[in-house]
Amino acid sequence: MKLVRHGARGREKPGLIDAQGKLRDLSAHCATIGWAELSPAGIKRLGRIDPATLPLVKGKPRLGVPLTGISKIVGVGLNYRAHAKETGAAIPAEPVLFMKATSAINGPFDPIVLPRGSVRTDWEAELGLVIGRTTRYASEQQALDHLAGYVTCHDVSERDFQKNRGGTWDKGKGCDTFAPLGPWLVTRDEVPDPQALRVWCEVNGEKRQDSNTADMIFPVVFLVSYISQFMTLNPGDVICTGTPSGVGMGMRPPQFLKAGDVVRLGVEGLGEQCQKVVAE
Amino acid sequence: MKLVRHGARGREKPGLIDAQGKLRDLSAHCATIGWAELSPAGIKRLGRIDPATLPLVKGKPRLGVPLTGISKIVGVGLNYRAHAKETGAAIPAEPVLFMKATSAINGPFDPIVLPRGSVRTDWEAELGLVIGRTTRYASEQQALDHLAGYVTCHDVSERDFQKNRGGTWDKGKGCDTFAPLGPWLVTRDEVPDPQALRVWCEVNGEKRQDSNTADMIFPVVFLVSYISQFMTLNPGDVICTGTPSGVGMGMRPPQFLKAGDVVRLGVEGLGEQCQKVVAE
Repeated sequence: MKLVRHGARGREKPGLIDAQGKLRDLSAHCATIGWAELSPAGIKRLGRIDPATLPLVKGKPRLGVPLTGISKIVGVGLNYRAHAKETGAAIPAEPVLFMKATSAINGPFDPIVLPRGSVRTDWEAELGLVIGRTTRYASEQQALDHLAGYVTCHDVSERDFQKNRGGTWDKGKGCDTFAPLGPWLVTRDEVPDPQALRVWCEVNGEKRQDSNTADMIFPVVFLVSYISQFMTLNPGDVICTGTPSGVGMGMRPPQFLKAGDVVRLGVEGLGEQCQKVVAE
Repeated sequence: MKLVRHGARGREKPGLIDAQGKLRDLSAHCATIGWAELSPAGIKRLGRIDPATLPLVKGKPRLGVPLTGISKIVGVGLNYRAHAKETGAAIPAEPVLFMKATSAINGPFDPIVLPRGSVRTDWEAELGLVIGRTTRYASEQQALDHLAGYVTCHDVSERDFQKNRGGTWDKGKGCDTFAPLGPWLVTRDEVPDPQALRVWCEVNGEKRQDSNTADMIFPVVFLVSYISQFMTLNPGDVICTGTPSGVGMGMRPPQFLKAGDVVRLGVEGLGEQCQKVVAE
């Protein structure tokens, strides 16, 4: 299934994208796409619904973040070799983790707002994992069973805040609007191999990133297991699995987002995002 | 007011501690101590209630985390000179920030669970700030108006996970049970000067930390304003303002928590916590 939330910000209704690519409303079956819907039982229940019985949604409504109840976003840094190299960092011996503030969560087509004082806001297209059940000290073998599905993530990052303002990366990762998620939450059954998905990003129509999750240093099952050794992952929690090469800070000369830019990005099978960049 | 939540884990009821130190139940007035109650209007409404009209709670019930709806915990590192020195770090030029996973939130008297593989779990008594209204690009002058109140925080930290496992500090700051909060949420009106509060910690009855918020490098009003330049703080969000000197990693030789240890800590006027340390 491709689960979505459609409608104005703060008043989104649950829905799904059917096999013909049409948006259908799920309001008769659930109030949101949240913890209950993302549990194994919840996904099974939604999966039994014949999409043809669901009302088509008229027009072209806004698509919001496809789930609610995200209690944390764990980011993974430097998880593609070529990206680690372009940033000048060593290949990590174990996953680099950081947290993105949940106040950064944004719809996939909502504007990215440059924070005050930003001079180096950068793009990062990523595969996102959505947790489906409580995950604690999970093994790699168990890892996929703990996922509800996958989502396209944009791990927007202010490099100056991230690297030059003291402390951890979190300062540059959690600014408001820096975590566009969606448009679809694609359930696990529709992604036979999460290590074979193209990840790409364009800025103003120019290709910047074009890679594949096959190039991850630490694969999805390792990440889920690894993170769960440090903290419990709850249903609805999101893991951003790291970005491939092609970010602005790796360009010669470096390029960063400015007001008026348009970023388009996607992960194969998970749908595309498109954001206009605006000043605060 | 000293607001609390009392009862078994997951079934806490709202309450308050009256002028005689007695626990009284607030269930007739609110369902929890959450966003609505922590807003300026919510605090005003609760403040109008005569505590004598509230039923006394019998026995000695468990006190849980005194608020719900914490969407993020922002930690401040190295905010006391003597602590920065004992850790071998430079005095920061601007606040060091990190995030504590909300899955780490724990009651003030619930056990601290040593995560698997932990060898250097350390104590950190801290003054916690509780946000009362949406805070974004706030000035220092506005900062206190954005606080609902204060809370004792224990910023439990696994030093190996924090410093030697690659990436940011977050790996060692967000383990389950690593964020005991409470026992009381003391409203702002009862704390005339947040920069004049004793902060202390004992391990197995031996004094380890004994300092005062007067020694902070970056005071409360600066921290609130500063953090709000990077991200929106929502009602219920918590800022842990940093720990004074006397942590285990600063001892010669270093000492860390082991199963069976008992940690007692407090901030002047905000109540004491006490945790038994247990193995996972």
